[in-house]
Amino acid sequence: MAVLEWDGVDAKAVDTARILAADAVEKVGNGHPGTAMSLAPAAYLLFQKVMRRDPRDQDWLGRDRFILSAGHSSLTQYVQLYLGGYGLELDDLKALRTWGSKTPGHPEYGHTDGVEITTGPLGQGLASSVGFAYAARYERGLFDPEAPQGESPFDHFVYVIASDGDIEEGITSEASSLAGHQQLGNLVVIYDANQISIEDDTDVAFTEDVAARYEAYHWHVQTVDWKKTGDYVEDVQELFDAIEAAKAETTKPSLIVLKTIIGWPSPTKQNTGKIHGSALGGDELAGVKKVLGFDPEKTFEVSDEVIERTRGAVERGEADRAEWQKSFDAWAEANPERKQLLDRLLTGELPEGVEDALPVFEANTVVSTRKASGKVLSALGEVVPELWGGSADLAESNNTTIEGATSFIPASRSTEMWTGDPYGRVLHFGIREHAMGAILNGIVLHGPTRAFGGTFLIFSDYMRPAVRIAALMQIPSIYVWTHDSVALGEDGPTHQPIEQLSTLRAIPNLAVVRPGDANEVSYAWLEILKRRGGPAGIALTRQDIPVFERGDGDASGDTFASAKNVAKGAYVLAESPTGTTDVIFLATGSELQIAVDARSTLAEEGIGARVVSVPSLEWFEEQDEAYRESVLPSSVTARVSIEAGLALSWRHIVGDAGRSVSIEHFGASADYKTLFKKFGMTTEAAVAAAKESLGH
Amino acid sequence: MAVLEWDGVDAKAVDTARILAADAVEKVGNGHPGTAMSLAPAAYLLFQKVMRRDPRDQDWLGRDRFILSAGHSSLTQYVQLYLGGYGLELDDLKALRTWGSKTPGHPEYGHTDGVEITTGPLGQGLASSVGFAYAARYERGLFDPEAPQGESPFDHFVYVIASDGDIEEGITSEASSLAGHQQLGNLVVIYDANQISIEDDTDVAFTEDVAARYEAYHWHVQTVDWKKTGDYVEDVQELFDAIEAAKAETTKPSLIVLKTIIGWPSPTKQNTGKIHGSALGGDELAGVKKVLGFDPEKTFEVSDEVIERTRGAVERGEADRAEWQKSFDAWAEANPERKQLLDRLLTGELPEGVEDALPVFEANTVVSTRKASGKVLSALGEVVPELWGGSADLAESNNTTIEGATSFIPASRSTEMWTGDPYGRVLHFGIREHAMGAILNGIVLHGPTRAFGGTFLIFSDYMRPAVRIAALMQIPSIYVWTHDSVALGEDGPTHQPIEQLSTLRAIPNLAVVRPGDANEVSYAWLEILKRRGGPAGIALTRQDIPVFERGDGDASGDTFASAKNVAKGAYVLAESPTGTTDVIFLATGSELQIAVDARSTLAEEGIGARVVSVPSLEWFEEQDEAYRESVLPSSVTARVSIEAGLALSWRHIVGDAGRSVSIEHFGASADYKTLFKKFGMTTEAAVAAAKESLGH
Repeated sequence: MAVLEWDGVDAKAVDTARILAADAVEKVGNGHPGTAMSLAPAAYLLFQKVMRRDPRDQDWLGRDRFILSAGHSSLTQYVQLYLGGYGLELDDLKALRTWGSKTPGHPEYGHTDGVEITTGPLGQGLASSVGFAYAARYERGLFDPEAPQGESPFDHFVYVIASDGDIEEGITSEASSLAGHQQLGNLVVIYDANQISIEDDTDVAFTEDVAARYEAYHWHVQTVDWKKTGDYVEDVQELFDAIEAAKAETTKPSLIVLKTIIGWPSPTKQNTGKIHGSALGGDELAGVKKVLGFDPEKTFEVSDEVIERTRGAVERGEADRAEWQKSFDAWAEANPERKQLLDRLLTGELPEGVEDALPVFEANTVVSTRKASGKVLSALGEVVPELWGGSADLAESNNTTIEGATSFIPASRSTEMWTGDPYGRVLHFGIREHAMGAILNGIVLHGPTRAFGGTFLIFSDYMRPAVRIAALMQIPSIYVWTHDSVALGEDGPTHQPIEQLSTLRAIPNLAVVRPGDANEVSYAWLEILKRRGGPAGIALTRQDIPVFERGDGDASGDTFASAKNVAKGAYVLAESPTGTTDVIFLATGSELQIAVDARSTLAEEGIGARVVSVPSLEWFEEQDEAYRESVLPSSVTARVSIEAGLALSWRHIVGDAGRSVSIEHFGASADYKTLFKKFGMTTEAAVAAAKESLGH
Repeated sequence: MAVLEWDGVDAKAVDTARILAADAVEKVGNGHPGTAMSLAPAAYLLFQKVMRRDPRDQDWLGRDRFILSAGHSSLTQYVQLYLGGYGLELDDLKALRTWGSKTPGHPEYGHTDGVEITTGPLGQGLASSVGFAYAARYERGLFDPEAPQGESPFDHFVYVIASDGDIEEGITSEASSLAGHQQLGNLVVIYDANQISIEDDTDVAFTEDVAARYEAYHWHVQTVDWKKTGDYVEDVQELFDAIEAAKAETTKPSLIVLKTIIGWPSPTKQNTGKIHGSALGGDELAGVKKVLGFDPEKTFEVSDEVIERTRGAVERGEADRAEWQKSFDAWAEANPERKQLLDRLLTGELPEGVEDALPVFEANTVVSTRKASGKVLSALGEVVPELWGGSADLAESNNTTIEGATSFIPASRSTEMWTGDPYGRVLHFGIREHAMGAILNGIVLHGPTRAFGGTFLIFSDYMRPAVRIAALMQIPSIYVWTHDSVALGEDGPTHQPIEQLSTLRAIPNLAVVRPGDANEVSYAWLEILKRRGGPAGIALTRQDIPVFERGDGDASGDTFASAKNVAKGAYVLAESPTGTTDVIFLATGSELQIAVDARSTLAEEGIGARVVSVPSLEWFEEQDEAYRESVLPSSVTARVSIEAGLALSWRHIVGDAGRSVSIEHFGASADYKTLFKKFGMTTEAAVAAAKESLGH
């Protein structure tokens, strides 16, 4: 068992961390000093004594991961990144929460070196940490499954600091239940039970027995109570021992309930809601400095011995890294094919020839896009080992199961229907959409695999905060959202998306992809996997829809365009059959067939309609102006969008002269054909809208 | 203790319920028969032997409430509503899941008599049941606080049937923690632990110890295991006894873990995922009928003795009702003022003179709209006793505390800052936005009080499914969403709403209200309280903004319009100062001042700009055509919307010639003035947009 070396310089470094946090908030005049002050010993312990990290290489595969789920206490992390030499300097701390600084209000992934994940919205960090731990196991399974536990270069720990708020949010209940179920021995959570939130003493709203609750999830739970003697004693050794015990428990995730006093040792504001989210004020801050033996006249004071000691992390990191490199090199030599796979994954490239693996769906048949998607996933699964995923208890409905694959659960969790394998690739989230979103984020943040999670489109609402934070981080989480309109039918309005397509498109950086037939599904998946710059959701039908007969290139004459054009976001599926483009239909998903039918009907009346398939508005907006103009010539102002949901997304495209065939109210329970008729999602409505738009 | 009377006719009635459920699904060809079959004894027990309800009066104040959180098993409820004589007949069951029927896929509030709440999205029902129990206590506090427990006409129980999926969803974790905290002795939850969901055996994703978890929340937990002997024995007496014990435990909510076999006694499909969500098929259904002694050739078979027995519920309900009426009348006589209050609440009217209570904010000062809102709530609180609410741990930030009020928690839960009172009116949700939304729904469904809950606007995403279902039910839940733009400043992009205003407006039936100064806040609240036809969210600034100097009526000359116009959703705040209306600014919230400034700047250049304040697009759309045309004359196509968020909501109003001053990307961490400048939320940008729109 590891021995903790701790002396007066360490203690002073911890106090320095407190002072820096309080000074930084004081300087900018706002922020969250309290937790950063009282968590300084725990954070210092992790960064300086526990975690294996190389401050100079934030991408080192073998590093322990650190997640500050209590993102409001960003200084807890920034101060350690400064002390440990991760690239932050005192000037960065002084620039806290100001425009362009590396120290924004909450830690931002991709913005500050050493930050593994953007946190702040409570619960997201802790829930995503479960995804980090999933990914560590799945990657180990890809690269080094035979190594004994703890002896692979792919083995490491995931450490989390969580707050009362994290524990209260429902998303962590979902994710924590899964973590216990998955027996994630590589996950160690320090829960800062300071019992103070913005409304002061959490007893006003939060009196459950957290330790018992986590035991019920099958976690390993320890309590470290720094208040237990009546005095407040930051017993670092006790916390260190608990962390070591947590690491030693390899069959369960660990929760360490750390009982702290927020804002300690602030003379009058410790243990109050006031110190959670406001600057201390000059007198109080001076008081803290006096208590800790710092000069109240000085700010941002760091002694040489402290910084010298803490920057030792760089050298230690190099040494750890060098030692790890040996084991990695030995692995690489022994596993040349796996090394090749890892190298490919790290470049972000798909395997060569992946396009050849895509299924081709026969024209003039009918198939739901969800079923087509299931076939595509199974086909891709054979050639893309980094692809894994599953569903929030809707596998059969979402068609998210890669054929022949085992389930990513311990073998002991096997059921009659599913075979468990700790390195399996079928994910079972249970009925926990929000945790699913956060876990997907954790997986793709942890490493280069590609993970997807499915539910009904309506339940994208349940996972929306996780989707948004993926978009903010610009990470490539993938969502499979089936039953994508009122055409899901009899389940009725509680299950029928109306505003979801529009409101998801409203999230910046999120690509919403709604393929219009089975062959569009193939190329939609290919394009989604090619991209790594942000999350994507694929919206799929429950009902069967036609597979269009297509040519190999662009639309021309009576020949429909190839589905390869999906990658451009929107393309001319069918040219006007009359020689002139009088009106343009823009349609997605199951409504594309309505546009195609309306085009034929109008042609009989001598009206020339072009049909533009729009699988993704976001991808289309990335195309150059010339291409966009070629698809939607500005001279053609008669335009009709057709989508079984709000017109909201389409108004800027169809313009004042345009019309939208849409649904602007909640759905109803009936078979889908009745609903489409009652709600005006028909060829007749499309034809009428076209004529209205043309001023006929 | 009550004695259960149960004979062969009851047993046959239960079997009839099973058969009716299976027949109904078979007829339409889709639906969820399995749970309705195995839950038939529990549902029958509740409806026929436990609950105090009057099938002929679904609005009886004293009724026990029933919530089918497992909404997909709607037949569990429909069959009992038929058997008990609540208005459904066999033809309704035969019309299951078809257009216009009273028996849609999931139970819909306001659509089918006897349905207390729309359920289906998992977790919502159970979480809202906590709100029902809150409301029962608060209403008791308003009308009959002195009565000993169990002796008031306002005392009754809330019964819930929940499924595995309900227990897995995070929202129920949040709500259940609150229920234990609140010691809700009037809440009884039967958890149908059948261990089968769509992915078959729930062991694949759900192995936590639910009983221990609920004990950790301080619930009273019992287990009734009908599988415990190895055979499956539906021991109704055991369940009845557990319900009686749950009722007897008045200081804790109760969870009864009922271990059932889904789809029992289906010969080959019981205990499988297949029977969860699909019709049994002819042979299997015939097999069930044979096992139960029914004629496999017949469908929807109900014997006379069964229907005679079950319709006895009507008579029993009348008798219970009559007995209750005595105690109610005695209460009314003894409490004339309280009776008057109840009468007023039941009409849905506000007290007379409530407008006089509204605070008036002095012109030419500055105040944030959240602070103004806090003052309005405290002022209204004095005259509107049915108004109560609080925050998800952001009371001070959301300004949601009615001054001088006690907190709605048991006295034993008091903290230094808050005084607990079981009948208090300040709600503390903890950091649980989703449960807050569901609890608010439960409160307003239960009775005529008006409840509000606050969080940051960004966290409306966390509560969105609860908001949507309120909109679907058209019930008047109220949300206080502060920190309503990037102008919240330093907390950065994780906390800054960008797409939220637009995406909330996209929810049908939800009113989003964003007042443009403090006096608009007063009238916004008044209008919100006047309305009961759907939920409303009020979006409020963190930062101080100017209070405009206004006249008493419409805008005229240089005089700004009265804030009373807020009720119309949009109104002319300031007429063009040049005599001609060249361009129209539409603005909301903190951006209204930008429009006002831009109007002045343009006037100097001889351009006449009208400023339209748009506190609520939804309210504006309800106005007649003439009024809307008077505010936004179609002849004026030069229009500029100004809102610190997406332009999405505004495109249909500003049109092709219009422009939007908006923010189309995520925010950043800095002070708000810097952000507004960097993101182009400025007078200069508004002026430039106006000129562009004018084609200058």
